[in-house]
Amino acid sequence: MPDPAEATPAPARGLTFDEIDLGRRFVSHGRTITEADIVQFAGVSGDYNPLHVDAEYAAGTVFRGRIAHGLLVQAVASGLAWQLGTFDGTIAALKEMVIRFQNPVFPGDTVHIELCAAEKDPEPSSRRGWVRFDAWVRNQHGDVVIGGTWTMLLHRRADRRRPLTREPSTG
Amino acid sequence: MPDPAEATPAPARGLTFDEIDLGRRFVSHGRTITEADIVQFAGVSGDYNPLHVDAEYAAGTVFRGRIAHGLLVQAVASGLAWQLGTFDGTIAALKEMVIRFQNPVFPGDTVHIELCAAEKDPEPSSRRGWVRFDAWVRNQHGDVVIGGTWTMLLHRRADRRRPLTREPSTG
Repeated sequence: MPDPAEATPAPARGLTFDEIDLGRRFVSHGRTITEADIVQFAGVSGDYNPLHVDAEYAAGTVFRGRIAHGLLVQAVASGLAWQLGTFDGTIAALKEMVIRFQNPVFPGDTVHIELCAAEKDPEPSSRRGWVRFDAWVRNQHGDVVIGGTWTMLLHRRADRRRPLTREPSTG
Repeated sequence: MPDPAEATPAPARGLTFDEIDLGRRFVSHGRTITEADIVQFAGVSGDYNPLHVDAEYAAGTVFRGRIAHGLLVQAVASGLAWQLGTFDGTIAALKEMVIRFQNPVFPGDTVHIELCAAEKDPEPSSRRGWVRFDAWVRNQHGDVVIGGTWTMLLHRRADRRRPLTREPSTG
């Protein structure tokens, strides 16, 4: 059994509700946020705030240049979490996220996500239950750029081909 | 003064903290979520959960097909909110989002965002204060697909070229 206090860089894939102990931590690979990411995210989202896309404007702000959209950073964090494999075949739904944008992310910064199982459904059904994770996105200096929580509905046994849920899954 | 109970499809641009009355509502244009959006968002985020990108797999789930990433829908909502113009030149920072994923969004669905000013900083500084908006993303049937809140730090006077904030702005 893993030490709950120890980060797990390469956890088992597809952990079920019952296999995730409170206090267990998961740490993703890093990803460098590039200018291309910001441009692409502006296109996908439609958020063309000049702080993100106008280098001349952004140079005149306190940031001295463009910063990444906060939701871009959260999106990259969600991808890093997916790539951990921890929830592959066991996540039924992403139910809720609380996102606190704490520090800016600049092109060239490298972020990763840390998740820690903080609370579990006291009355899971026979098929699934929710787990609330504390979530921190950190940059290459270890500073938290986004803090918050992620609440996921997890299956109690893995089923990679046919998710058991009949509830909406929107994650 | 606008009727607080009435939606405002085309509000004034660049509203300051002081110009936003509690109860005021803002309703965006719609945007159709396409297969291309899902593919692009998978690339930007790195979230290749087969529920979003594997049509064969997704056809075997309760959804009978691929669904949009929840954070893609939230990202599109943020872009629609930006395009309202309401916060152009007056937003200092996006501080916090609470996101409850309530219903799936399928390719071809059309979403829009509704924001309602629900709470204002009781002790704004001379330069800015926060406003918490209740936020609903609805589909073409009027169903809420995402509910939650958005907390923004807004300037007390507009300044389109030089945001006054010295605090991190990560939105």
